Amino acid sequence: MTDRIREFLKTRREDGPCVVVDLDVVRANYAAFARALPDTRVFYAVKANPDAAILKALAELGSCFDTASTGEIEMALAAGAGPERISFGNTIKKERDIERAYKMGVRLFAVDCYEEVEKIARVAPGAKVFCRILCDGAGAEWPLSRKFGCVPEMAADVLEHAHRLGLAAYGVSFHVGSQQKNVHAWDQALASAAGIFRECAERGIGLSMVNLGGGFPTKYLQDVPSATAYGEAIFDALRRHFGNAIPETIMEPGRGMVGNAGLIETEVVLISKKSETDTMRWVFLDIGKFGGLAETMDEAIRYPLRTPRDGDDTAPCVLAGPTCDSADVLYEKTPVELPVSLAIGDKILIEACGAYTTTYSAVAFNGFPPLKSYVI
Amino acid sequence: MTDRIREFLKTRREDGPCVVVDLDVVRANYAAFARALPDTRVFYAVKANPDAAILKALAELGSCFDTASTGEIEMALAAGAGPERISFGNTIKKERDIERAYKMGVRLFAVDCYEEVEKIARVAPGAKVFCRILCDGAGAEWPLSRKFGCVPEMAADVLEHAHRLGLAAYGVSFHVGSQQKNVHAWDQALASAAGIFRECAERGIGLSMVNLGGGFPTKYLQDVPSATAYGEAIFDALRRHFGNAIPETIMEPGRGMVGNAGLIETEVVLISKKSETDTMRWVFLDIGKFGGLAETMDEAIRYPLRTPRDGDDTAPCVLAGPTCDSADVLYEKTPVELPVSLAIGDKILIEACGAYTTTYSAVAFNGFPPLKSYVI
Repeated sequence: MTDRIREFLKTRREDGPCVVVDLDVVRANYAAFARALPDTRVFYAVKANPDAAILKALAELGSCFDTASTGEIEMALAAGAGPERISFGNTIKKERDIERAYKMGVRLFAVDCYEEVEKIARVAPGAKVFCRILCDGAGAEWPLSRKFGCVPEMAADVLEHAHRLGLAAYGVSFHVGSQQKNVHAWDQALASAAGIFRECAERGIGLSMVNLGGGFPTKYLQDVPSATAYGEAIFDALRRHFGNAIPETIMEPGRGMVGNAGLIETEVVLISKKSETDTMRWVFLDIGKFGGLAETMDEAIRYPLRTPRDGDDTAPCVLAGPTCDSADVLYEKTPVELPVSLAIGDKILIEACGAYTTTYSAVAFNGFPPLKSYVI
Repeated sequence: MTDRIREFLKTRREDGPCVVVDLDVVRANYAAFARALPDTRVFYAVKANPDAAILKALAELGSCFDTASTGEIEMALAAGAGPERISFGNTIKKERDIERAYKMGVRLFAVDCYEEVEKIARVAPGAKVFCRILCDGAGAEWPLSRKFGCVPEMAADVLEHAHRLGLAAYGVSFHVGSQQKNVHAWDQALASAAGIFRECAERGIGLSMVNLGGGFPTKYLQDVPSATAYGEAIFDALRRHFGNAIPETIMEPGRGMVGNAGLIETEVVLISKKSETDTMRWVFLDIGKFGGLAETMDEAIRYPLRTPRDGDDTAPCVLAGPTCDSADVLYEKTPVELPVSLAIGDKILIEACGAYTTTYSAVAFNGFPPLKSYVI
């Protein structure tokens, strides 16, 4: 909670939940990343929060942009970033979207298989490609599935295929898992990357770049290491595996860039019990899983909550959203402690909601409008 | 797949996934429900698919509407239903939304606790309330959580509270679980409802109505019982538990009304393998969990798939969506069988997608637009 957000919420008159993001915090986060790894270019992961004001502020600071679709490429361009500052980082792209991106000037593309290389070779001649490899994600609170990346053993073949088709085999990428709290998680992936660099070199292909991905955490309930701690651990690992030939590096913070910059204001709609003898209260908010809090799926991300009654005695509650969908329960397996004095109509602040909230919001589920967003 | 949908898709030129709903199927479903339980009023669950053309077609047939929000109430009114045909069926309502609904003429409200009764008594004097009770949902493919309803033992107290506050204690509701394939699932809940009727009668309160809820299934991969079979089993249970004093009944089909009326057309964006030796293909579509297929969560709903290569040899595939979100995987624990000849660019038809697709769609996740919908 910043003073600027506090002042904003005091004067807000509209009904319904909203997220408020403080650009000063985003700018401070950018500076911390830039300081932590001074030789690494920052590609902000637009999907975390594509608000135009956030993209513009980051573009002004010199940020590059990691994009998932032509829609996001257009947003980054509109924010003032030239196409040379944009990576089309989704490994799953329609050929006509690759072509559109190429026509907009984008020259850097992610791949993780032969088929994607072939699409790019057909419609984006000469473009740079980096191959994403699988990574185990141990230590991450939101470990990634096997959806993106090939096994490291296949990467040199994919890159060689690109090289033979006239593309620039540019480098290797990986993702150590979202909300990664182990600063040493990059070590094993960098060892794999260095191996792929060596194998490509033996085939006469000089790779240039390692994409360190994202995974940098936001503070939810527990403390997280500083950007500096990540920077030191990553730089150590780069030196260990690449020696004196440290490659060009880029990173793709999303959650780490905007997560702690925003919060959601929500209202308590109902507090009730399921039976006369129940000790557990059910607290229903005017936002839930389909209104922007999708990352509570499996209770993965546990957001800090602030109420106007903090300091009063607390008791455990099930927390749920306002829709007629029975899956719209936020925390039940591990209930949340909330003041016993909490009342219907109270406003609750959900902290660290700057990332992965607005765009996850359903378009009109149950007739509720999507989450309102203010960037100040 | 109907002839009308086939013709429509032949002439469609736009890019991107879409859902197409055939109103003739919706009308036939309405007729089947009306025939199966001729004395039961049908309240279509608007949340299943709130498309204006669907609401208008159902309003013309005489349907009533179960709504989850003031937004849905406005949609039902716009479709031509008078407020006497609208139930505000969400048990979680802001007091000012109850007031808005009351001002729009709505007089029927769901409750499951004392606190909600008190809100209604304050701003909707004299309204009818029905109390939702918990139900175990055995036999449902999408069993409901404990989010809605109180234990049956509490219902008479909640209804008596409403009565004392000047509301009309009107009846009891329950939900046997979504995609409920056991036609006898209503029996136990109706036994509880009859018990609540008796207990209220002893307190001098005459209840009038049982809301049978939804749960009526759509055919996905497996056959489901007919509307007639549900009608007979429910009518038998009503007679068994209420004898000659069968109450007024309403039902709230959503999935059962529109699920089989629509399908999604999607495009294969990529087919790849994670390693040279993998036998499992990954098939990526241009729609996923955040684009409308949210009900694949935990692989709960398994949609039938049709490809232009059906009949060729098949092999198991992991099926995933197009976003940079690693949770956007549709079927992996139980892979899907797809033709080995399937190619990038092929169109796949996902059947039985008329319900719970369009409105679950994220507003702009990863820069992808929400699911396009055509009702023909």
